[in-house]
Amino acid sequence: MAERLVVIGGDAAGMSAASQARRMRDVDDLHIIVFERSGYVSYSACGEPYFVGGWVEDLDDLQVRTPEQFQARGIDTHIHHEVTAIDIDGRAVTVRHPGGEEEVGYDQLLYATGATAIRPPIEGMGLKGVHMLRTLDDAAQLRSLVSSGVERAVVVGGGYIGLELAEAFDHVGIHTTVVTMMPTVLERTLDPDMAELVSDHMRSMGIHVETGFKVECIAGVGGAVAGVGCDDRSFPADLVVLALGSRPQIDLAKDAGIPLGPTGAVAVDDHQRTEIAAVWSAGDCAEAHHRISRRPVNLHLGTVANKAGRVAGINLGGGDAAFPGVLGTAITKVGDLEISSTGLTERQAAESGIEAVAANIESRTSANYWPGSSPMTVKAIAERNTGRLLGAQIVGGPGAGKRIDVFATAMWSGLPAHELAWTDLSYSPPFSGVWDPVHIAARKAGEKAAGPFPSPRRTK
Amino acid sequence: MAERLVVIGGDAAGMSAASQARRMRDVDDLHIIVFERSGYVSYSACGEPYFVGGWVEDLDDLQVRTPEQFQARGIDTHIHHEVTAIDIDGRAVTVRHPGGEEEVGYDQLLYATGATAIRPPIEGMGLKGVHMLRTLDDAAQLRSLVSSGVERAVVVGGGYIGLELAEAFDHVGIHTTVVTMMPTVLERTLDPDMAELVSDHMRSMGIHVETGFKVECIAGVGGAVAGVGCDDRSFPADLVVLALGSRPQIDLAKDAGIPLGPTGAVAVDDHQRTEIAAVWSAGDCAEAHHRISRRPVNLHLGTVANKAGRVAGINLGGGDAAFPGVLGTAITKVGDLEISSTGLTERQAAESGIEAVAANIESRTSANYWPGSSPMTVKAIAERNTGRLLGAQIVGGPGAGKRIDVFATAMWSGLPAHELAWTDLSYSPPFSGVWDPVHIAARKAGEKAAGPFPSPRRTK
Repeated sequence: MAERLVVIGGDAAGMSAASQARRMRDVDDLHIIVFERSGYVSYSACGEPYFVGGWVEDLDDLQVRTPEQFQARGIDTHIHHEVTAIDIDGRAVTVRHPGGEEEVGYDQLLYATGATAIRPPIEGMGLKGVHMLRTLDDAAQLRSLVSSGVERAVVVGGGYIGLELAEAFDHVGIHTTVVTMMPTVLERTLDPDMAELVSDHMRSMGIHVETGFKVECIAGVGGAVAGVGCDDRSFPADLVVLALGSRPQIDLAKDAGIPLGPTGAVAVDDHQRTEIAAVWSAGDCAEAHHRISRRPVNLHLGTVANKAGRVAGINLGGGDAAFPGVLGTAITKVGDLEISSTGLTERQAAESGIEAVAANIESRTSANYWPGSSPMTVKAIAERNTGRLLGAQIVGGPGAGKRIDVFATAMWSGLPAHELAWTDLSYSPPFSGVWDPVHIAARKAGEKAAGPFPSPRRTK
Repeated sequence: MAERLVVIGGDAAGMSAASQARRMRDVDDLHIIVFERSGYVSYSACGEPYFVGGWVEDLDDLQVRTPEQFQARGIDTHIHHEVTAIDIDGRAVTVRHPGGEEEVGYDQLLYATGATAIRPPIEGMGLKGVHMLRTLDDAAQLRSLVSSGVERAVVVGGGYIGLELAEAFDHVGIHTTVVTMMPTVLERTLDPDMAELVSDHMRSMGIHVETGFKVECIAGVGGAVAGVGCDDRSFPADLVVLALGSRPQIDLAKDAGIPLGPTGAVAVDDHQRTEIAAVWSAGDCAEAHHRISRRPVNLHLGTVANKAGRVAGINLGGGDAAFPGVLGTAITKVGDLEISSTGLTERQAAESGIEAVAANIESRTSANYWPGSSPMTVKAIAERNTGRLLGAQIVGGPGAGKRIDVFATAMWSGLPAHELAWTDLSYSPPFSGVWDPVHIAARKAGEKAAGPFPSPRRTK
């Protein structure tokens, strides 16, 4: 008889795992059942702000594959099926669905419930015009709202989603304000010197940015939202979107006794095994090993969820894969400004007990004389004495952001800053100066960390 | 008394070395004299096609610094000064200049003569309208020609400069043909499967591409060029530019007994020392260590010249630097098509005695549903069994080309293909899919080389 794999959660991690296991084991050998509580599987949450702003026309484009497509590939996919309990000893889950409730046994269980948007306990959350963005339904609702006469929007939260939403609202002609309680935008991924460049640019686009403002109350008139803040300082709005980040969905796991790690997400080993036999976990609900801080982290990134899901799928499929960890690399844009980061910020390095130095350089996306050249600021962070790269941040015009991947690859490989400074990167006037901005930042960080001219390594 | 450094050649390598040595040693301690035979120092040859095509307005923009600026920094810079002989035993050079000829003694000598455009021994080279492109004077001449009624241009040579010139001519409305004796364009940096994408794109732009055609003769009428080829097959032209590559300028070195290496360029160690005491060399005239083939190569790239020059400068300045070698990373564009490569092609791997496998994947520059998304083809080449990355090639729309730097950094670090497949690269819909095309190509190459699912390395 076939072994049965039950997957709780049909988004990036769950469907990656299911697909990978299916490629490796036949239907006769492994029965895969996915339970997804929403009406969608495998959708691109990262694309939602771009649907709201109208760059993406069709909501279906954000669905990588439909339940029917997975079904056709031999993955038994059930939407509107919510797992409400896990019986570890009995190796079964309780599933609630439109037709009732049932118990489904498993031989292997993948816990891939993802994360949920943080809903702050403040007054006015129930007012008409107060929204959050997580599901495709949320995105559809926001899209129809913004095209029906919204004049002023306030986005609460200065993270990636907050900024992307602000760009979307601005793009469709809505007067937009971003408020964050943090001293700067993107406070978890950029140091203040780099974050300032982003908020300056947003202001130059006409987006109002208000930092250090904690929203304690949302004001309403006649049941509809009127603004954010109920005291002296308030920002009028007919649309408020809360983008305060997300937290791992661990309630089910907690109730079942599946151990959590120090971050509060499900603890896993490098094969995505939890501490409970036959129970695996991957994606936003699970921890991952950070290759620089060497600590567990809980990042809610599609890249991590896809990779961790694939690792779980390989192992469930009979292979042997270890998830090699994360750097937290991320990228976004606001208007023409590209923003990316990897590894630790200066503050995070200090929190991790690592003594860091940083170099912040101003350069250009292409040769100075190239007509499309734009400014580009690069910050490289290295460990004192060793020159080990700890992190990097880039803010600049078109072509700037994806250069973060060079830092990420160097950090992944353990290449110190003073060696990255000599790597053979591509050059042509439309693409960079003869020394790429990555080189220049790496060299300066390397010199600060380890002094001038440490001999680079030569492969014999 | 100050030591005296004589630098022969005032372009990238020579001026990088001079500037670096000057930063490290005072004028009282080191007297630096540069002899440059042309009227310019430190200019961007790579920018010349873009000046010819009119994207760059001012020829002065292609001069990084003027002789006067170097002079002001304490570097004794002499243009129109040609070194005609080196007396190794007497530690002196003979210099010919507008005022006559003299002998100048040295304590240290840097041989940085660069490369010269290859001038084929064919009939018709002396016709009016037959040009080459190397110096700023050449660029100025071509620019004034193309803006004065040229109707048909033929570029002989399908390398980087040939393609960039073809784009420039096409851009200003000239009917343009590229002819190359090779079976494909960019034959030294792309395998045929990738090169086809480039010539297809050029043809779609209206540029005529003729491969496998060896130019034996240039036809003329009344002393002016009439076309390329004098037999059955010929291509009419009122402008012909020969872009057949360049060769290292080693005559002076040879005459002086400075040993050359297997490539025919000046042999140097990793400190840029030649085999002759007190004589150094760097740039297009010198060899460099190739990190993948582990053989000496002679690449004519501004990136290599700048780095090797800086290494020589550090060592001449009293520091200790080793040039860590090259991968041959390069990038260009033709219209909207970006083209880049690093390391060895399949053919070069075979020539180097390395057993290679290759994966060629078609992907997109951003999420499929992003409005600006364009096709992007990535080829990754890995060593059989080990998965060691040997090379990569990218052809695609805006944003594709610079991703070659991720491969270059991975190759530099010795990261095998199957590990690059798991690295934490940045993702957001405007910039890539959740698996970057680099990941996908690396994974396929890794699987071909070493089988599926080798466990990636985890930093503990």
